[in-house]
Amino acid sequence: MQNLIAKIEAFVAERDWERYHAPKNLAMALSVEAAEIVEIFQWMSEAQSREPDRATRDHLRDEIGDVMIYLIMLARKLDIDLLAAAHAKLGKNRLKYPAGSDPVPPPAAAARSLKD
Amino acid sequence: MQNLIAKIEAFVAERDWERYHAPKNLAMALSVEAAEIVEIFQWMSEAQSREPDRATRDHLRDEIGDVMIYLIMLARKLDIDLLAAAHAKLGKNRLKYPAGSDPVPPPAAAARSLKD
Amino acid sequence: MQNLIAKIEAFVAERDWERYHAPKNLAMALSVEAAEIVEIFQWMSEAQSREPDRATRDHLRDEIGDVMIYLIMLARKLDIDLLAAAHAKLGKNRLKYPAGSDPVPPPAAAARSLKD
Amino acid sequence: MQNLIAKIEAFVAERDWERYHAPKNLAMALSVEAAEIVEIFQWMSEAQSREPDRATRDHLRDEIGDVMIYLIMLARKLDIDLLAAAHAKLGKNRLKYPAGSDPVPPPAAAARSLKD
Repeated sequence: MQNLIAKIEAFVAERDWERYHAPKNLAMALSVEAAEIVEIFQWMSEAQSREPDRATRDHLRDEIGDVMIYLIMLARKLDIDLLAAAHAKLGKNRLKYPAGSDPVPPPAAAARSLKD
Repeated sequence: MQNLIAKIEAFVAERDWERYHAPKNLAMALSVEAAEIVEIFQWMSEAQSREPDRATRDHLRDEIGDVMIYLIMLARKLDIDLLAAAHAKLGKNRLKYPAGSDPVPPPAAAARSLKD
Repeated sequence: MQNLIAKIEAFVAERDWERYHAPKNLAMALSVEAAEIVEIFQWMSEAQSREPDRATRDHLRDEIGDVMIYLIMLARKLDIDLLAAAHAKLGKNRLKYPAGSDPVPPPAAAARSLKD
Repeated sequence: MQNLIAKIEAFVAERDWERYHAPKNLAMALSVEAAEIVEIFQWMSEAQSREPDRATRDHLRDEIGDVMIYLIMLARKLDIDLLAAAHAKLGKNRLKYPAGSDPVPPPAAAARSLKD
């Protein structure tokens, strides 16, 4: 991980892209890359998505790589430790969803529905 | 990283959520979490996004944690090594954007514009 | 509008795409098209986004057209009247944001931050 | 439609939100609202998404309304006629996907896969 972060820092520095990398812009790029993964699956059934063919899996690896790259860039700009953030959030999710609970419907969506 | 992956596996197993976790669904959840980061920045200027206040940064850490969790879940379901995928994609990006090149406009967008 | 809806219905019927058009899938396609608009703006400043050049504006028109097409498809599948839904939601937004109020920070985001 | 557009213009003017509504920001808000629709469907099967219960359908109507509102705001800022853009894009889509053709895999995704 540290090695990957260092390589990404060098990549950005060599291109002088720091000026483009406001967190606002990196968040946009992150969501665009996430959408490219969604695009791959949009007309597949859930069952098909569990068994992608070789070419699709190669494509997915590229897009997953891009999401990871932007996620690292964003976390760095905000001085957030990515692994620590995921550990901490997993702890919160444990409390929010006790063992045996169901992820449906999303609590956020339900809360918003009531609120609006 | 290995420790985080193991904890996420346990989290899913304890809740029996494997049946919800088709890659299609995890891709949707990943993009929803990415959008929650975009929501935080949508009315901020780029300059403001570089200097989030304490509460906003705490909120960002949670959302970044969620993106990381879903990204790990998705990569696992597809049997893709997340760090290796990012390393490999960074290598491709090096070739696509030689040092000194500009990220604007996105080549994919320009290509699509010509094509459509 | 009625004319556009009728044309879209014919487009889907001619291709026999009804079987792909579960609301789940149309929601994915809608978000992918929205992300293609975000991609165009991701490295632009806000000021630049207010003054797109001719080619960018043509590209934007195409992507905005695609979002509208999927939004109509989705509303139809759910038997929701698109214009009536927007009118009704605008009424709710009027109450949520009294004249003179500020859209920053997003109330949903702030609420979620407190809740999580 | 003209009536809705006029109401949206008045809504923005009364709140003096024009200064927030750079196309870059409106594109972000549009994608965030699209993601809120995706969130509703993320753990549902395709079959379940075709038969939402009453509360879910009410929630969907609100979110679809929000997407429509931001889409109108964005088109206006760019001086793009929303209905004309959708008509024109539908014509292009007719050529790209001849009757009898399949939407899978997405041509853009396949092209990008080859290109990258």
